[in-house]
Amino acid sequence: MNYRYELLKTSGRAKRGRFHTVHGVIETPVFMNVGTVAAIKGGVSTDDLKQIGTQVQLSNTYHLHVRTGDEVIKSLGGLQRFMVWDRPILTDSGGFQVFSLASMRKIKEEGVTFNSHIDGRKIFMGPEESMTIQSNLGSTIAMAFDECPNALAERDYVQDSVDRTYRWLLRCRDRINQLNAMEDTVNRHQMLFGINQGAVFNDIRIEHAKKISELDLPGYAVGGLAVGETHEQMYDVLDNVVPYLPQAKPTYLMGVGTPANILEAVDRGIDFFDCVYPSRNGRHGHVYTWLGKRNLLNKRYEKDMEPIDPSCGCPACQSYSRAYIHHLLKAKEILGLRLCVLHNLYFYNHLMESIRGAIEDGEYAEFKRDMLYSLGTIEREKGAV
Amino acid sequence: MNYRYELLKTSGRAKRGRFHTVHGVIETPVFMNVGTVAAIKGGVSTDDLKQIGTQVQLSNTYHLHVRTGDEVIKSLGGLQRFMVWDRPILTDSGGFQVFSLASMRKIKEEGVTFNSHIDGRKIFMGPEESMTIQSNLGSTIAMAFDECPNALAERDYVQDSVDRTYRWLLRCRDRINQLNAMEDTVNRHQMLFGINQGAVFNDIRIEHAKKISELDLPGYAVGGLAVGETHEQMYDVLDNVVPYLPQAKPTYLMGVGTPANILEAVDRGIDFFDCVYPSRNGRHGHVYTWLGKRNLLNKRYEKDMEPIDPSCGCPACQSYSRAYIHHLLKAKEILGLRLCVLHNLYFYNHLMESIRGAIEDGEYAEFKRDMLYSLGTIEREKGAV
Repeated sequence: MNYRYELLKTSGRAKRGRFHTVHGVIETPVFMNVGTVAAIKGGVSTDDLKQIGTQVQLSNTYHLHVRTGDEVIKSLGGLQRFMVWDRPILTDSGGFQVFSLASMRKIKEEGVTFNSHIDGRKIFMGPEESMTIQSNLGSTIAMAFDECPNALAERDYVQDSVDRTYRWLLRCRDRINQLNAMEDTVNRHQMLFGINQGAVFNDIRIEHAKKISELDLPGYAVGGLAVGETHEQMYDVLDNVVPYLPQAKPTYLMGVGTPANILEAVDRGIDFFDCVYPSRNGRHGHVYTWLGKRNLLNKRYEKDMEPIDPSCGCPACQSYSRAYIHHLLKAKEILGLRLCVLHNLYFYNHLMESIRGAIEDGEYAEFKRDMLYSLGTIEREKGAV
Repeated sequence: MNYRYELLKTSGRAKRGRFHTVHGVIETPVFMNVGTVAAIKGGVSTDDLKQIGTQVQLSNTYHLHVRTGDEVIKSLGGLQRFMVWDRPILTDSGGFQVFSLASMRKIKEEGVTFNSHIDGRKIFMGPEESMTIQSNLGSTIAMAFDECPNALAERDYVQDSVDRTYRWLLRCRDRINQLNAMEDTVNRHQMLFGINQGAVFNDIRIEHAKKISELDLPGYAVGGLAVGETHEQMYDVLDNVVPYLPQAKPTYLMGVGTPANILEAVDRGIDFFDCVYPSRNGRHGHVYTWLGKRNLLNKRYEKDMEPIDPSCGCPACQSYSRAYIHHLLKAKEILGLRLCVLHNLYFYNHLMESIRGAIEDGEYAEFKRDMLYSLGTIEREKGAV
């Protein structure tokens, strides 16, 4: 077996897991750091990632396919060797980008035809193509090629889409098995995670969750959330659907989210997360702390010689002040956003560490309550002013 | 005495020196890394600078005055504390930026009135203002406020300008002495370096060099070069002028230059250098090696898994390949330019280390000849193709 998920402990429905892969162990719940084109935006290198406690790096199939190309990366030994990262990598399927970035797309049973957002060239991607690209990249975990319907799509459209996504999943499974059997495959132990869809229709999602669970894949994701529905709708879907995904497998909530979203989703049995918030917010000078978010571009930080968070062990807080970072951001110096991104990723990675500790202690409910209160401190103080 | 220059060894006219300052020792010849607005462009932090062997960091008086402001930085304990750099800092006088960046400038005996390039606001800067700003920043070495005439200026204009620059130097000296005597001054041991000017008129420069040398300042710069004249004209000025500056003091060639320029200037008795080339070229994917410069954006590096320079110990070469950096540059990922900048600054710092070694060995002439040949290798091979 090329993987093993140990469920070490539960606290309520929150799971503390350990996922063994051919590229090392992933302690869950885990936040994956998003390196869209084989680099974390903000000038962060894989050397940096090791310093800030990153366990899994996530890269985007679509982006790497259209620029530099998965075949070039395969010829260089795969993504791990290319970006010098010997720990686990998860690649998405490209589906989400095809549906959100590309123009002129046409969906058929075979797959999707679309124009590249870089040079407009016509590209076809279906389950087999997505699996081949991900195999070329040689990631630890490959995601199934799916359609992510609009959060506001009609029930009939969603049902048809989910049915097709299921047929695509079977084709993904067949193709990855073929690829893993080939001698020149970069990572012959590549795993496939299935993705649950169904927008906010719980009955469609539950039916789909049951069907994909029967396939006994190494892991499962909940997709199609955080795409326009409310937080309450998202939590309601998780409340209803996660119980139909295998507890003894990792469960991944794609593209989520804020610290509060993560705290709530862990409480509903989620193991894996990814989100561009920490890096995107960091690039705009918005930094996370245990008391909530600060905007370092604010004039109030001009003479503030405290680190972003005095209790933080990240490379930015170990050396630099809010005043200096404020100055760098105002002067549009790249170093400013780099320090904010490093801090935010460290914060997310260490939030997950605290979450794991709380589950181990069997006190997740109290931890979540206290943490949600703490994370609201700065916001409450603003209201009090 | 707040400083001491030891002339450890000479090889021809090349000097191997050791400059003791209140912020630590500077081994010369030295290349100062340019952090215009208290940050090296390319996302490089002071923590990084320590890793790549930087001895002196140079910051720009004009830029820090117009953005964030020297008074704010003084209130926070000065530039060293602000950017977290406990080694020597040299600040320029602001003169060069006033004459190259600002618009609507008017030069009078008192100083220069000009409009800020940021918000257009009218600013007056003369010798006293420049010294006050540099004192607020608390740098180790302050540069005299001078006029840098156009390389093609007429003789009469240059003579008048140099005469005024001399009168300004006397006012700089008086003002820095006053400032260093004040109790709340950030660095009461701040040193003043005088600047030789005179465009390409050797007799004007020699006369000026003699006069400023009599002032017995802690160090002297040759300014107004690398502003449009040919390399041969620059070397000719150095041949003629450096002998009239005190050998027992550090000599600084401002804004220079390429590795070849530095090799030639060291051979003419120069100790200190600064230039934006390594960081600016790095941001465009042009990287220095002992064999010459490479353009990593070139398609030929797409599948090249060698580091930029296999013999290099910089953080980029220790981990990453030309292929990966090529990919990052093409994808416009900040990490790409950051790695190139780190590499280039490391290269310059280590070029200086080799230069120091060659002078210590008394073999500078041979070293220069071999190095100039080696640095032309890639260019020659291009020609051979």
